[in-house]
Amino acid sequence: MTSAAQDFQPIDSAVTPRFAEPATFMRTPYVPDRQGVEIALVGIPFDLGSTNRAGPRHGPAQIRDMSRLIRQVNASSHIAPFKLCRVADIGDAPVNPLDLMESIDRITAFYRDLAGKGIVPVSAGGDHTVTLPILRGIVRNGPVGVVHFDAHADTLDTLLGSRINHATPFRRAVEEGIIDPKRTVQIGLRGTRYSDEDIQYGYDMGMTIITMDDFEAMGRDKVIAATRKIVGDKPTYVTFDIDGLDPVFCPGTGAPEPGGLTMRDAQVVIRGLRGLNLIGGDVCEVSPPLDPSGHTALNGANLMFEILCVVADSVARGRKN
Amino acid sequence: MTSAAQDFQPIDSAVTPRFAEPATFMRTPYVPDRQGVEIALVGIPFDLGSTNRAGPRHGPAQIRDMSRLIRQVNASSHIAPFKLCRVADIGDAPVNPLDLMESIDRITAFYRDLAGKGIVPVSAGGDHTVTLPILRGIVRNGPVGVVHFDAHADTLDTLLGSRINHATPFRRAVEEGIIDPKRTVQIGLRGTRYSDEDIQYGYDMGMTIITMDDFEAMGRDKVIAATRKIVGDKPTYVTFDIDGLDPVFCPGTGAPEPGGLTMRDAQVVIRGLRGLNLIGGDVCEVSPPLDPSGHTALNGANLMFEILCVVADSVARGRKN
Amino acid sequence: MTSAAQDFQPIDSAVTPRFAEPATFMRTPYVPDRQGVEIALVGIPFDLGSTNRAGPRHGPAQIRDMSRLIRQVNASSHIAPFKLCRVADIGDAPVNPLDLMESIDRITAFYRDLAGKGIVPVSAGGDHTVTLPILRGIVRNGPVGVVHFDAHADTLDTLLGSRINHATPFRRAVEEGIIDPKRTVQIGLRGTRYSDEDIQYGYDMGMTIITMDDFEAMGRDKVIAATRKIVGDKPTYVTFDIDGLDPVFCPGTGAPEPGGLTMRDAQVVIRGLRGLNLIGGDVCEVSPPLDPSGHTALNGANLMFEILCVVADSVARGRKN
Amino acid sequence: MTSAAQDFQPIDSAVTPRFAEPATFMRTPYVPDRQGVEIALVGIPFDLGSTNRAGPRHGPAQIRDMSRLIRQVNASSHIAPFKLCRVADIGDAPVNPLDLMESIDRITAFYRDLAGKGIVPVSAGGDHTVTLPILRGIVRNGPVGVVHFDAHADTLDTLLGSRINHATPFRRAVEEGIIDPKRTVQIGLRGTRYSDEDIQYGYDMGMTIITMDDFEAMGRDKVIAATRKIVGDKPTYVTFDIDGLDPVFCPGTGAPEPGGLTMRDAQVVIRGLRGLNLIGGDVCEVSPPLDPSGHTALNGANLMFEILCVVADSVARGRKN
Amino acid sequence: MTSAAQDFQPIDSAVTPRFAEPATFMRTPYVPDRQGVEIALVGIPFDLGSTNRAGPRHGPAQIRDMSRLIRQVNASSHIAPFKLCRVADIGDAPVNPLDLMESIDRITAFYRDLAGKGIVPVSAGGDHTVTLPILRGIVRNGPVGVVHFDAHADTLDTLLGSRINHATPFRRAVEEGIIDPKRTVQIGLRGTRYSDEDIQYGYDMGMTIITMDDFEAMGRDKVIAATRKIVGDKPTYVTFDIDGLDPVFCPGTGAPEPGGLTMRDAQVVIRGLRGLNLIGGDVCEVSPPLDPSGHTALNGANLMFEILCVVADSVARGRKN
Amino acid sequence: MTSAAQDFQPIDSAVTPRFAEPATFMRTPYVPDRQGVEIALVGIPFDLGSTNRAGPRHGPAQIRDMSRLIRQVNASSHIAPFKLCRVADIGDAPVNPLDLMESIDRITAFYRDLAGKGIVPVSAGGDHTVTLPILRGIVRNGPVGVVHFDAHADTLDTLLGSRINHATPFRRAVEEGIIDPKRTVQIGLRGTRYSDEDIQYGYDMGMTIITMDDFEAMGRDKVIAATRKIVGDKPTYVTFDIDGLDPVFCPGTGAPEPGGLTMRDAQVVIRGLRGLNLIGGDVCEVSPPLDPSGHTALNGANLMFEILCVVADSVARGRKN
Repeated sequence: MTSAAQDFQPIDSAVTPRFAEPATFMRTPYVPDRQGVEIALVGIPFDLGSTNRAGPRHGPAQIRDMSRLIRQVNASSHIAPFKLCRVADIGDAPVNPLDLMESIDRITAFYRDLAGKGIVPVSAGGDHTVTLPILRGIVRNGPVGVVHFDAHADTLDTLLGSRINHATPFRRAVEEGIIDPKRTVQIGLRGTRYSDEDIQYGYDMGMTIITMDDFEAMGRDKVIAATRKIVGDKPTYVTFDIDGLDPVFCPGTGAPEPGGLTMRDAQVVIRGLRGLNLIGGDVCEVSPPLDPSGHTALNGANLMFEILCVVADSVARGRKN
Repeated sequence: MTSAAQDFQPIDSAVTPRFAEPATFMRTPYVPDRQGVEIALVGIPFDLGSTNRAGPRHGPAQIRDMSRLIRQVNASSHIAPFKLCRVADIGDAPVNPLDLMESIDRITAFYRDLAGKGIVPVSAGGDHTVTLPILRGIVRNGPVGVVHFDAHADTLDTLLGSRINHATPFRRAVEEGIIDPKRTVQIGLRGTRYSDEDIQYGYDMGMTIITMDDFEAMGRDKVIAATRKIVGDKPTYVTFDIDGLDPVFCPGTGAPEPGGLTMRDAQVVIRGLRGLNLIGGDVCEVSPPLDPSGHTALNGANLMFEILCVVADSVARGRKN
Repeated sequence: MTSAAQDFQPIDSAVTPRFAEPATFMRTPYVPDRQGVEIALVGIPFDLGSTNRAGPRHGPAQIRDMSRLIRQVNASSHIAPFKLCRVADIGDAPVNPLDLMESIDRITAFYRDLAGKGIVPVSAGGDHTVTLPILRGIVRNGPVGVVHFDAHADTLDTLLGSRINHATPFRRAVEEGIIDPKRTVQIGLRGTRYSDEDIQYGYDMGMTIITMDDFEAMGRDKVIAATRKIVGDKPTYVTFDIDGLDPVFCPGTGAPEPGGLTMRDAQVVIRGLRGLNLIGGDVCEVSPPLDPSGHTALNGANLMFEILCVVADSVARGRKN
Repeated sequence: MTSAAQDFQPIDSAVTPRFAEPATFMRTPYVPDRQGVEIALVGIPFDLGSTNRAGPRHGPAQIRDMSRLIRQVNASSHIAPFKLCRVADIGDAPVNPLDLMESIDRITAFYRDLAGKGIVPVSAGGDHTVTLPILRGIVRNGPVGVVHFDAHADTLDTLLGSRINHATPFRRAVEEGIIDPKRTVQIGLRGTRYSDEDIQYGYDMGMTIITMDDFEAMGRDKVIAATRKIVGDKPTYVTFDIDGLDPVFCPGTGAPEPGGLTMRDAQVVIRGLRGLNLIGGDVCEVSPPLDPSGHTALNGANLMFEILCVVADSVARGRKN
Repeated sequence: MTSAAQDFQPIDSAVTPRFAEPATFMRTPYVPDRQGVEIALVGIPFDLGSTNRAGPRHGPAQIRDMSRLIRQVNASSHIAPFKLCRVADIGDAPVNPLDLMESIDRITAFYRDLAGKGIVPVSAGGDHTVTLPILRGIVRNGPVGVVHFDAHADTLDTLLGSRINHATPFRRAVEEGIIDPKRTVQIGLRGTRYSDEDIQYGYDMGMTIITMDDFEAMGRDKVIAATRKIVGDKPTYVTFDIDGLDPVFCPGTGAPEPGGLTMRDAQVVIRGLRGLNLIGGDVCEVSPPLDPSGHTALNGANLMFEILCVVADSVARGRKN
Repeated sequence: MTSAAQDFQPIDSAVTPRFAEPATFMRTPYVPDRQGVEIALVGIPFDLGSTNRAGPRHGPAQIRDMSRLIRQVNASSHIAPFKLCRVADIGDAPVNPLDLMESIDRITAFYRDLAGKGIVPVSAGGDHTVTLPILRGIVRNGPVGVVHFDAHADTLDTLLGSRINHATPFRRAVEEGIIDPKRTVQIGLRGTRYSDEDIQYGYDMGMTIITMDDFEAMGRDKVIAATRKIVGDKPTYVTFDIDGLDPVFCPGTGAPEPGGLTMRDAQVVIRGLRGLNLIGGDVCEVSPPLDPSGHTALNGANLMFEILCVVADSVARGRKN
C-alpha cells in the first residue's frame, strides 16, 4: 500500500477489474495515517440524528462499494481530480452508535485534526446531522458560505425535544457563527411540512432559498448564476442531502419527497460551482437497508465525485496562489 | 381514540415518531363510525378487475404505511387540509375477494352511504375498476366531470368477455349517465394498444384526451388551463391511475407504460385544479407485491395528499357558501 | 370500534378479508384506552440499543402487518386465546428516537402503568434492550424467572462504553433484582464471541444455559422438562430474540448467527411452557429494513401468537383461582 | 420443433446453456398439439380462488423459468423420466382472470380432453382450487385416492360465502365422488385455525390426517408406509400445496405456516410413493410476486420433477401390463 | 404452432391472458425453423465480453417475460408491426458460456445464415459485444450506418488486454469495414472516463458524437434531424445499449452512468428514425440478476418494440419497391 | 496500518462499530505485502468457469462485507484463530474477466508464491473452478487429501466442450496428481443429474462419496469418523461449495439443489476436522447478484471462519512440532 499511497492513484481498472479488492472510495488508496493526503475521502457511519427511518450508518460502506464504478476523468468538465490532487480514502470518522452527543464530539475532533493538517475533506454520511460536526471541525476563520442541496431546510430549532438531529444542523451552525446565512443557498426544498413556518428561519436569517418551484421557474443557468453570486469568492462548503433528488434517484433514503431534482440537474449545478473557493463537501442520507440494489449509493458516489472534481480544482488553484 | 376523533388532527410526529402506532392514512384518526367526518380517507382492497398482474388489493395497506411520511402542510400551495376540514381514515370499503360483482355492489353501497351523510371521499384503490362503484355511489344529480390521469383510456367495451373490469369503467360510467364525457379530461395516455381503435370511444363521446405527446407539446400550463376550462365549475371528480406516471415512479403497478408523467408533472397539474368544484378523488393501481420497497405507494400517498388538498379547499369553500 | 372492543374478538376473516383494514396485532381491536383489556399486545418501536444494524424500530409495524395471517386457534395445543381472555392491541409504548435513556424511562413508565391496571403484556420489539424497561415496569414482588431464547446471552457488562444496550439487559436485570438468575434459562446460545468469557456471567450467577450444542444433545423434550423444573411455578417471563432462530428463519435481524433453532423447535418448546405461571412475554429484534419480504416478521408474529397462547392459558387459570 | 417433439428429449444443457431459449417445463419440448405425448406438463395460471394474497397465476411462468435447473436423472431413485416416457410441455390450461366459475369449467374441459387422449398430467398451479377441475377432468371410473401435502386441509364447506375456492376443493371432490376420503392422506397440516373444527370434515369422512405433530412423531418411514397402505394399488393422485413446506422453503406463497416440512422430507416421502398406481399430480400455490428470487419456484420445480419421476415410473409400468 | 406460425400474429391477450403460456418476445409465435419469417426476434444470451458485473446472458429470458406487456400497435406512430410483416421469435443465437471467441463465431454464423435467408433481425442481448458478430453476419455490401444509443462510446482499442469485449465493438467494426464511421451517430455519451482520450477514436474517424451535454443543448428535434441527415438513406443499423438511459430506467445493467436519457427521450428519437433504410437493431446490456423486478427488462422490451416498429415500416416499404 | 499488521488482530468491535471502515475478511488487517502473515484470507473474484448463472466474481466483496459480523472466538470449539496465528486479508488473486485460461494461470502463480513463502491460504471464491489453480499452486510434495462439501461431484471430464470449468476441477486435480482420490471425501452430493454416470469417476478412482442419502443414514458422528479415517494425518485441504447447503441457506448460488445440508450440519462436521493436518481451505460459489440480502454470504463467511479455526489450530500445532 505504500506505493499506492505514494502516487495516490486509484486502482487501475484496466489491470484489476472493478469487482476485485476491498472497496475504498473510488478505488483510491486507503491511507488511514493520512501521510501526504491533500483531499481526504471520509466516511461518517452515523445516523443517531435520524427521527424516522435509520440506516445511513451503513452509507459509507455501500457508497464505497458502488464507487467502484467511478473512473478517473469527468467527461463534461474534463477535470481529472486524481491528477490534480493527492486524494485518498482515510477511513471513517469515529462514532459511538449508542451515544449521539459523544459521536458528535468525536466527529468534530476528527475533522478538526484534518483541518489542522491542511487536509480538505469530501465526506460520505451518515445522516445530515454530520454536517454540523464537520463544519465545527473545519471552520476556523469566521463563517463560511454553504451550497446546500436538500428537500428539507434542516433549520428547525428542535425536533422531538432535541436540538441536535438531522432537522437542525444549519440552524445550529448559524447560531454558532460557523456558517454565514447570507452566503447560504438552499436548493430543492419542497414536500409536506409540519407547519407553514418550517423554513421561515432561513428566510429570516437571509438565506437564499430556491425551492423546487423556484428551481423550475428559474432554470439551471440562473440557479447557478445566483448561487455563484451569493457565495462569492470566499470559503464555501457544499453539502448534498441525497433526498434533494427525486425519490426515483434515491429510494434508499429516510425522508423521500417526490418531485425533486434529477441527477442531471444535480450534476449540472455542481459542475457550475467550478471556480468557487471550496473548502470541502459531503453527501448525506444514503440509507443502504432501504435500497439493497445500491442504486441510491451509486448516485451518492457520483455526486461525491462531482463535488470532488470542483473541490480538487479549487484546491489545485489555491495551491498555485 | 375519542379525543383524536374529536379534533381530527393527525398524530403529531413531533411527539410520536413516524414509525410508531398502527398505520392510518396520513396518520389521521381512525373513525370507522364516521361521526363528524367531512372528508373520508377510504381504502378499497379490490383487484378482481385486473386482467394481468394482480396485487392492488394490498394497495390500501401499503399506502397507509408509506403515508406516515406525509406531514400537515402543502409546501407549494400552503393548503393545510387537516386544518380546513375534519379528515379521518374510516377504514376500507367491503369486498369479497371471491366475487367481482358482489364486491362492486358492496362498494357502491358503501359510497352511497357516505354520500348520504354528506361525507366527501378521497380513496386509495384497488384496481381502477373501483372508480365505477365509487361514482355510482356518490353521483346523485346528473353526470359529473372527471379529471383522469392514466396511461390507458379505460374505455373499452369489454375485455376477456367482461364488461366490468379495469379497462372499462369510464365507458360504463358514460353509459350510465354518471360522468359527462364532454366534461372529462384524460391525461397521460400512451403505450402500446390492442388496436388503433382502443381509445376511439373517448374521442367519439367528446372526451378531451391529452396523450403524452399532447402533454409534452402543450406544456403543463396549457394542460391546466384546458382542463379547468373543460370541467368548468360544476361538480368534478379526480381519479389518478398510478400508471399515468412513468414506470420509474411506479414499478409497483400491473400495466406499466414507459414514457409517462413525472411526479412533478402530476403534482403541478393537480395543484392547478385548486378552485374547482371537487367532489372527491382516488389513486388506483398501486400493487405492493410488485414493489415491496414502497416507492410506488409513497408516490401514491403523495398524490392522495395532493388530491386531498384541492378537495379540502373545495369542501371548505363550499361550506362557506 | 366500541363494539369490537366490547367483545374483544379479532376481525373475522371469513367476513373481512385479511388484506383489508388497518393492521393491528392479529387483527385484534385497537383499544388505546385499554378499557377492559386483560392481555395487551404492545409494540415497542425502539432500536437505539443496537450496536450494529438498526431497524427494529420498524418491527411492530411489520409484525402487525404480517400478523394478519394469524387465525384464532392453535392447531397443536387447541388454545383459543381470544376466547380465553380479552386481548387487544393497545398501540405502541412511547419512545424518543433521539434519546436512548429517555426512551427507556418512558417505556418503563408505560409498562408500570399497565401492571398497575393488572394488564398482562405480550410485546413486539424493538431491539432486545426493551426487555429491561418492560421488566422494570411489570416486576413488583421480587425477581421473576425468565425463559430466554436467543443466540446471545445479552449479559455483557458494557458494550461500546454503555451499560444500557441490547447486549446487557439481563445483567442489568439481575443486578436490579428483577430477575432471578437461578430461575433463568437461556436457550439457543451460539455463534462467534468477542472472548471466551462473554457468557461467563450467566454461569457465575447460576443461570441455566442451553447452548445449541446442548439443545441438540438434549433434544426438545429434555429441554422442556429442564426449563419447567428450573422456573418452577413462580412468576415467569418469556422473551424471544428472533435471532435465536437460524438466520434462514430471520434474515431480517441485526446479528444473525447460523446454526440456530428452527421455527418448529421454537413452537414446540414454547408450547411446552403451558401451565407455568406466566406474566408476559416479548419477541424482539425483528428488523424490517433487512427483510422487506416480511418472512422474519411472519415468524415473529407466529412466535408472539405461541407466547400469547401459553400466557392466555396462564391468565385464564389465574383468574379462576 | 418437430424433431424435438419426435424424440421428446429436453434441450441438452451440455450443448445449449441453461439460460438460453424460451423456458418450458424442465426444458422439455413445447408440444401444444399434444401429438404423441404420454405425460403432459401443464401450467394453470389461475388464482381467483385465493382469499388473501394473490399471485399464483404467475406460478407456471416462474416454475418454467426455474425448472431450467432440472437435469434428466433423479440421483436418489435413478429414475430417468424422459427416458421412460414421452414427456412434453403442452402449455397452459385456459382461464379467464375475470371469471372464477368460467375458468373452473374451462380447466375441467381441458383436462377431460387430456384424459380422453390417455395423456397423464403433471401440473403447476395456480392456487389450490385448481385440483378440483383437474380431478373433475381426469377421474372417470369412480373415486381415486389422493396423497395431499399441505399446511391446510382445504376441506372447508364455504369461505367468504363461496363454495369454490382454495379452501374447499377436497370437500367438493369428496361430495362429487371423485376422490375417496378413505384413500386420502393429508400430510403436514398445522398452523392457526379459524376454529377447532376446521379439519373435522376430513376426520369425519375417514381421511387419514398426518399433522406436523404426527409427522414428527411417526418419522418419514412410517409416514410412507402408512400412506402406501391407505392408498393401496388403486388409482391415486398426488397434490402438493407448496405451503406444506416450512415458509423458509416457500416465502413465495399466500398462506405460509411456520413449522412445516423440509424439502428433504418432501423429496423422501414422494420418492416413497414409487410403485403406486399414479394417475397424475400437481404443485400449487407458488406465488412469484411474493418471491421474485425464484427460490419458491425452484422448490416447486423440483417437487414437480419428483412427482414426475414416480408418475413416469407408474406410466411405464402400466404400459408393460 | 403451425397455425400460429402461418398467420404470424402474437397471442391475442383478449383471449389468453398475458401471464399464460411460455414467454416469447412480444408473444409472437416461436418459429425456430424460421419458415416464412421476415423479421426475426432473436435472443443472444452472451455476456463474456463484460468486464465488470455479468448478467446479460439472462437478458433474453427476462425481456421475453416482460414483453408479455407489449400490445400490437404503437400509440404514437400508429405502426402495427405484426400487421406490416411476418414477425416471429426464432429462439436464441448459439453461445458457449465457457468460450468467448467460439461464441462470437457461432453468433456470427447464426446471423450470416439469417441474412442469407433475407430475414431481418431485431435482437435482445447480451452484453454489447454482440453487436459485432451481428454486424459481421448481416453486413454484406459495404459498411452500414449506425444509430448508437449508449453512455459509452465502446470504441476502445483494448480493455484488460483484450480486443473483443463490450468496450470495443464499434472500433473493430470500423476496422473491419462493416460500419461507416461517417454514417455513425452516438447518442447519450457521458459519465466518468478512464482518460480524456476514451472517445477520441470516434471523433478521429468522423463519427458524430452527441453527448448528453450536446443532447440537452440541441433538444430532441435537432438530434433527430442531425441523425437522419448523417445516416441518410443508405442501410442503417440501430443499437441501443440500455445504459444510454439514466440508471433510474435501468438499474439492471452493468455500468450505469447517472444523468442519462429518459425513456421518453429514447422513444421519441427512435420514432424519429421512421423512414430510414433500416436493416435491423438490438437492445443490449439488460442484466436481470441486477434487477429482479424486471423494470429494466420492461424498458428493454419497449425499446425493442420501438425499434421493431421502425424496422418493420422499413421492411414493408422495401418490399413494395 | 503498520501497527494493525504488526499485532494482526481484527478491528475491535467494542471500539469501532461493525459498520465502520472498509470491509476486510473478518475485519482482519489488510496486508497486501503479506509481511509476517501466517494464514492469508484471500478473495478470488472469478466466475468464468460457470456454465449457468454467473455472479461469484462478486463473492469476495460481499463475503468481506458480511464477515463484519464475525467475532473472535468459536463458541463451540473455543478456538480463537486470531490468537493462534497471524491472520490477514491480503487482497484478491489476480484475474482477467475476459480470459478464463489466463486467469487460471495467474491464480496458480499467486498461490504458488504464497506457498513459497509458507503462507497458508483460506480463500473465498469465485466459482468452484478456482480450487484447481489453488491446489496447483500450493501442492508441492505429492497429492493431498480433500474434504469436499458440495451438491455436485465436480468430476466431469468436460462440459460444453471445455475441460476447465466448475464441473471438472477434481477430475483434473486427480489426473494431475495433486489430489489423492483415495484420501478424498465428497459430502452432500444429490440433485438431478445429466446421466446416471455423472459421479461414477469418483467411485472408480476410489473417492469416498457420502451422498445426502448416505449422510442422513449415517448421521454426523459417523460422517466425521469416516472422513477422519480416510484423510488420515497427511496433508489435507478443505473445500466447501456453498451449494452443498440446502438452498434455503444459499439462495445466492448458481446451481442450487434442494434437500441439502443445514448450516448446523456443516458447522458440526467442519469442527469435527480439528486435529487433522490441514493445509488450507476455501468457500466457493457465493453469488451476490442472486442474493443481495447477503444471507448467503453471511453463511459463507461463517463457514470460512469455521475452516479458519481448524486450519489455524493445525498451523499452530505444526509450528510447535
